[in-house]
Amino acid sequence: MTTREEALAGLGRIVLSTDPDVTASYGFDQSRFTDRATPPIVLAPTTTVEVAECLRVAAEQGWTVVPRGAGTGLSGAANGAADAVVLSTHRMRSIVSIDPVERLAVVQPGVVTGDLRAAVAEQGLFYPPDPGSVAISTIGGNVATNAGGMCCVKYGVTGDFVLGLEVVLADGRVLRTGRRTAKGVAGYDLTRLFVGSEGTLGVVTEVTVRLLPAPREPLTLVATFGTLAAAGEAVAAITASGVSVSMLEIMDRTTLRAVDRMARMGFDDDTAAMLLVQSDAPDAAAVLADVEKACVGAVDVAIGEDPAEGTQLLEARRLALPALEQLGDWLLDDVCVPRSRIVDLIDHIEAVAADEQLTIGVFGHAGDGNMHPTIIYDESDPASRAGALRAFDRITRHALDLGGTITGEHGVGRLKKDWLARELDDTSMAVHRAVRSALDPEGRMNPGNVF
Amino acid sequence: MTTREEALAGLGRIVLSTDPDVTASYGFDQSRFTDRATPPIVLAPTTTVEVAECLRVAAEQGWTVVPRGAGTGLSGAANGAADAVVLSTHRMRSIVSIDPVERLAVVQPGVVTGDLRAAVAEQGLFYPPDPGSVAISTIGGNVATNAGGMCCVKYGVTGDFVLGLEVVLADGRVLRTGRRTAKGVAGYDLTRLFVGSEGTLGVVTEVTVRLLPAPREPLTLVATFGTLAAAGEAVAAITASGVSVSMLEIMDRTTLRAVDRMARMGFDDDTAAMLLVQSDAPDAAAVLADVEKACVGAVDVAIGEDPAEGTQLLEARRLALPALEQLGDWLLDDVCVPRSRIVDLIDHIEAVAADEQLTIGVFGHAGDGNMHPTIIYDESDPASRAGALRAFDRITRHALDLGGTITGEHGVGRLKKDWLARELDDTSMAVHRAVRSALDPEGRMNPGNVF
Repeated sequence: MTTREEALAGLGRIVLSTDPDVTASYGFDQSRFTDRATPPIVLAPTTTVEVAECLRVAAEQGWTVVPRGAGTGLSGAANGAADAVVLSTHRMRSIVSIDPVERLAVVQPGVVTGDLRAAVAEQGLFYPPDPGSVAISTIGGNVATNAGGMCCVKYGVTGDFVLGLEVVLADGRVLRTGRRTAKGVAGYDLTRLFVGSEGTLGVVTEVTVRLLPAPREPLTLVATFGTLAAAGEAVAAITASGVSVSMLEIMDRTTLRAVDRMARMGFDDDTAAMLLVQSDAPDAAAVLADVEKACVGAVDVAIGEDPAEGTQLLEARRLALPALEQLGDWLLDDVCVPRSRIVDLIDHIEAVAADEQLTIGVFGHAGDGNMHPTIIYDESDPASRAGALRAFDRITRHALDLGGTITGEHGVGRLKKDWLARELDDTSMAVHRAVRSALDPEGRMNPGNVF
Repeated sequence: MTTREEALAGLGRIVLSTDPDVTASYGFDQSRFTDRATPPIVLAPTTTVEVAECLRVAAEQGWTVVPRGAGTGLSGAANGAADAVVLSTHRMRSIVSIDPVERLAVVQPGVVTGDLRAAVAEQGLFYPPDPGSVAISTIGGNVATNAGGMCCVKYGVTGDFVLGLEVVLADGRVLRTGRRTAKGVAGYDLTRLFVGSEGTLGVVTEVTVRLLPAPREPLTLVATFGTLAAAGEAVAAITASGVSVSMLEIMDRTTLRAVDRMARMGFDDDTAAMLLVQSDAPDAAAVLADVEKACVGAVDVAIGEDPAEGTQLLEARRLALPALEQLGDWLLDDVCVPRSRIVDLIDHIEAVAADEQLTIGVFGHAGDGNMHPTIIYDESDPASRAGALRAFDRITRHALDLGGTITGEHGVGRLKKDWLARELDDTSMAVHRAVRSALDPEGRMNPGNVF
């Protein structure tokens, strides 16, 4: 067996650093309240062959491995763990090919999602997934968490656009899943097994994504409501009407006030909630007219005359998290409930905020029932930290009670590891562990995550 | 340990029959050239609890188990195997609930797909998957094969509409996968792992499906072409134009002649191919006008004035398989190639037909590249049988050479078991086996299938 030094020497320039001053910044993502550690080694391969080499060396040396994209995750899945080597995909940022005829692209995992969207748009094509981090997160990370975004109400999540993967397994074997054709049922859907597996089954080294023709520029509607219930009724009515919206977002009073404080948008203090709706359908104007009819309890409804005006109307939504960040330290939750239970969830969150004397802003993807309660607290105050955690737990618990899930699009990571067993039952947990062991018997991929 | 007789007595009325005269008809599906056997026992449970009881008894008795839907499969995945008990889901045909607000339905596996489509349509909802067998096949079977249909070019396949499953594992444990919310990433996507697994991982006992608002009645366009190449160019142009069609089907000369012989539709003998195109978009008339422009090489283009006329125009497509069946025994293939390679595939099939002196009709889902070459042969003539098999192999081989897959929507079953290892590599086959073993260590579910 080679020594650690020999192993590192063998890996050569793949080794980014072993200097804690450098590796420390590869030891955490954007989550709060999650365990983290400075990685002893950061590896940064550029090719599949180099990733395989990394994992073979790791297997030989008995290292555990944390795969890492851009570190923009919100659940700690890319956090460093004691003695775990970090494998960063940031040097693997090539768009290998874009095929406009078959409408697919092949990319390395380190490609920034927004860059891919821009590159395919140049060819009149559309890669829908648009997580909030779209400008800074990478395709590999999006695949690892099955990232969503505002597009999901019409277009679905990342996994809906992944046709195939190349993955390096824990022992260094290279697995190809999926296909380049529109359909195919040869064998198990291993592609979907890896999507959302948060780095616990292997390292994704290439992604084949399905593309759509570029949609029309959307038209935008903004509606404000004096009560949360009225906004909730509008969401239900829009959904029930069956009109095809490409965005259906909600912001609550706390979030609106924070945005107003930041950008002076002139929101009335009486505004309890705002809905932001888009349609990119051929009959978008008719769709938004139907949406307006569904907003019976609205105080005010504004429809952008053209796409540019829509961009202005959306500004408030885009500022939601930055504005809440101004209020203090923040803990961002990501629960998803049946669409009809959104008001119940937000009501509960407001009660929790009052009870714990915390500011909690709520915004999110109303069309999917996927909400992001953002708890503002003071990191330096133990009592405030404890209150934030209690609020987080109460909200997550309530989402489950409403028939929802603990995570709509951010993943389990370290943040919700304890919660997974509360959502799933013993049989499901046992099957998860069995599948994991089948692919990584020694449990060396992303230890301490998800399970 | 209980004896076989005691075990059967314990199962009571779950045992449908042990009489070979009765069980024989549960020993095969609609495939040709696949191994089959008369099952010693057919079990027909009505509830999840009874399915679990069946699998516990099977585990105790050492029986292998073939799960069976309606037996309409085309790859032999529901064929009986020596000593394997058949577990039929035909008594599990309850639509448990339809939720128009959350737009989902919960159904037992034995529900006929067409019945579910009709039931949700009554509430203004739409379950898109429409395999050719839609009037006779069941949701459970559709889930097992990840069935497709003519809807896929716009709406996707069965798996795209499955939110969650209840599955009884080989040892009798009941596993729940997925969720009732629009999004969710808690744990691995076990739902998709079971979809398309052809009964090799467990028995699906309940399916939660996602529904859409009912679409508009589609408008239909039919175009005929003097050469296959001209039809292929039209498919490429339609795809490249990015217009949203909800159906894009092709039929070749052999199929058209067979349909004409059956129904006297007056097709010109010079017609080499026909495209059938639908749009259910709000701007369907404009979409079909664009499609007509894309059909530059067409001999004739007809657009239905209204949905009723569209139904008439579609008649030829609906008669494709029945008409080919009139010509003799048939072996139906199901390959999928990149959309741009359809003409290459059909050209090759015509050459194979000439070479082997066989009639081979080709029809299929041009929008997905998913073709159904239908080889006509004489079951009673060994030379004809051998020729049909050679043709089948040559076509499947060519689909792989074109970057396609051995099966677009029918599944591997027994028919293409040997082909799976030619599409997948050794690592993929090893991972498939490892996943299978993780869930069914004794290999008792649907032995001799897929692998």
